[in-house]
Amino acid sequence: MPTPARSGPHPEAPAAPGAGQEEIRRQNLGAVLRYVHLRGPTSRAELTIRLGLNRSTIGALAADLAATGLVTEEAPTTARRAGRPSLVVSPRSGGVYAQALSIESDRLRAACVGLGGRLLDLREVGRPPGMPPADAVGPLAALVRDMERGLAEGARCAGGAVAVADTTRDADGRIRIGRADAGLGAALHAEFPPGPGFVAGDLADIAALAEHVRGVAVGLEDVVYLHGDLGVSAGIIAGGRLVSGHRRHSGKVGHMVVNPNGLPCGCGSRGCWETEISAAALLRHAGREPAEPGAVGEVLRAAARGERTARAAVDRVADWLGLGVANLVNVVNPGLVVFGGSLREVYAAGAGVVRGRLDGSALPASRERVRLRAAALGRDAALIGAAELAFDQLLADPLNAGVAVQEETGHGSTDGGVP
Amino acid sequence: MPTPARSGPHPEAPAAPGAGQEEIRRQNLGAVLRYVHLRGPTSRAELTIRLGLNRSTIGALAADLAATGLVTEEAPTTARRAGRPSLVVSPRSGGVYAQALSIESDRLRAACVGLGGRLLDLREVGRPPGMPPADAVGPLAALVRDMERGLAEGARCAGGAVAVADTTRDADGRIRIGRADAGLGAALHAEFPPGPGFVAGDLADIAALAEHVRGVAVGLEDVVYLHGDLGVSAGIIAGGRLVSGHRRHSGKVGHMVVNPNGLPCGCGSRGCWETEISAAALLRHAGREPAEPGAVGEVLRAAARGERTARAAVDRVADWLGLGVANLVNVVNPGLVVFGGSLREVYAAGAGVVRGRLDGSALPASRERVRLRAAALGRDAALIGAAELAFDQLLADPLNAGVAVQEETGHGSTDGGVP
Repeated sequence: MPTPARSGPHPEAPAAPGAGQEEIRRQNLGAVLRYVHLRGPTSRAELTIRLGLNRSTIGALAADLAATGLVTEEAPTTARRAGRPSLVVSPRSGGVYAQALSIESDRLRAACVGLGGRLLDLREVGRPPGMPPADAVGPLAALVRDMERGLAEGARCAGGAVAVADTTRDADGRIRIGRADAGLGAALHAEFPPGPGFVAGDLADIAALAEHVRGVAVGLEDVVYLHGDLGVSAGIIAGGRLVSGHRRHSGKVGHMVVNPNGLPCGCGSRGCWETEISAAALLRHAGREPAEPGAVGEVLRAAARGERTARAAVDRVADWLGLGVANLVNVVNPGLVVFGGSLREVYAAGAGVVRGRLDGSALPASRERVRLRAAALGRDAALIGAAELAFDQLLADPLNAGVAVQEETGHGSTDGGVP
Repeated sequence: MPTPARSGPHPEAPAAPGAGQEEIRRQNLGAVLRYVHLRGPTSRAELTIRLGLNRSTIGALAADLAATGLVTEEAPTTARRAGRPSLVVSPRSGGVYAQALSIESDRLRAACVGLGGRLLDLREVGRPPGMPPADAVGPLAALVRDMERGLAEGARCAGGAVAVADTTRDADGRIRIGRADAGLGAALHAEFPPGPGFVAGDLADIAALAEHVRGVAVGLEDVVYLHGDLGVSAGIIAGGRLVSGHRRHSGKVGHMVVNPNGLPCGCGSRGCWETEISAAALLRHAGREPAEPGAVGEVLRAAARGERTARAAVDRVADWLGLGVANLVNVVNPGLVVFGGSLREVYAAGAGVVRGRLDGSALPASRERVRLRAAALGRDAALIGAAELAFDQLLADPLNAGVAVQEETGHGSTDGGVP
């Protein structure tokens, strides 16, 4: 079939105005900075090839970025063939950082992430049951201040972002679905006032973004990332873009009804997917108490040793996991499904069963081309993704995002390098 | 929450080159033509406001489009206030048309659709059970040739598109899922050789596009369009763009498993959504034979009259319809769900039950803001959507799509109007 159906733009959209020289320079600076941010140190020669710009342009762009403290340029350390070496452009990880936060069901985490994605420092504290997200901002800000004292002198903050889990535990132990956003924006504004702004988003969406930018899903257009915590939610990437939904509530896949005669769910419905695949379901099948710390790991290890009850519990959860994955494969037709959060280990323990159920329940055309993978970034995915969100503004307009040092010598002053 | 998480572009993407004057003119011509194509006759004065361009620019663009036969310009017929009247720009519906085809489960349809979306002519023949899509192209081409003889002299074809249903009936009566694309492209190329190209796509996707461009979903960013025929599939629009999937197989929502202990499905799985909501399911619950022609309409009418068995059958199907809609609302968070094809009447007959089940099974945050609507375009949706696909190339570059008349007098020669 030659061509997909795509909706055209709305008729009101006026024709795009022509891009001026300043706009082109802005885009090119962003392309160079984004490249080294995502790919790491890169020679001017390689940037020339990868970005399709000519050598002198790359040289001038890299020099501008270096003059404003966003990258460094150095001669390569390894021996090379004849000719003058091409300078290597590196992101200034220690000099430019993002404040990355996550409000998870049972803990609060904060990291300073350097340009280039390097984790400079990380702190974690428990989240008491019932603590609203807005109340978590104060403790998180204290962690950030503490970390910032240890950063290199003159390090500049490019912005911040917070990933908020969509399922939390109330003070009485009950699981509550849906983020309580009330006051979160105001609390962030109060605690992080002078910076270049703070963004917030759903934890599964942000972890999906992290896997898409730096994990197992790099370069793929159609991905379903499943995140297990107290519940199960998803970040769905379609056509290279996150599906966020009409009110930013997409991806509540844990509440697909897959078993109408099943157990009541905390959401008020019955037979939701997460009643069959959550950690609580695994422990229930294994005859364990949900409150036992470390119990999930014990069940998975027992299953690996071949203990019958544990193995049966894992297989049962994996079968339901495969059934829901089949539904998502039929609906969204992803090229890759990623298992993250607590589902990472569950998938690893029952991968064969998951695939078997997928093969039994999804249409051949969709299931044959889909790969299943454990997440690459582990529990840091949300922080890594939050840092990517926080860097977005800088990468879109490197010199005007309030991060670049405004050198008196002007742009391009250090451009003595050989392209 | 201030900002959504979105995946950034890939680092390889070079900065966009600056748009030259020719490119700007091309975009502006497209914007004017697309506006009148979608909105109908529009005065130059209104185009000036809507497209944010100045009066002389709109005047020159409209004159260029008129000179090349894509639009007409006329003084308004209605009386106006003081001052010289603004010329009205109209798409030349009779002069420029698209070939729109649909290969449905039981019939083949062909239409000539004029610029502006006017149905100039339409033909339909039955599709014998077991006929592969490629074999349908010959009969469809014959219908098109027949219609073209009746079009205005000099009418020019802007291209063609075909919508192909994803469920068909084999010669032995068995329902088969998944389009047999084999040979379709070649057959189209053989039957429609000299034109500006032919595109093909999934019928539900194309009908969704039609509702998005000319139906109940105009201007909305997040829409699930459900299409009932032999099976049930969906066109999913997220962030204003169609979700097509890794291999263009997205939207097979009829094969979500919603009842693991339910009936076997033709796809090889069990308890798929369409086993509970298809026309066959409705007839089964009503105690009717699936093969009776017109039986679905009779059941719906009997239910409307309050006949108990029919009413119970409709309510049961509507309940399952609402459950699957709840799943999609939880996964995709659309602002609108549209019921099309055979689901249009089923929804109309059981709207209260559908909404009730949705409210019982979807998360409050998602369900409270979602509207449910019957499709606006009826059984012509696929043809209307196919025509939109076929016009895409012309609307993107009006003077260079091989449709514009190349007048010897050059561009802008008729520009004597008053903006």
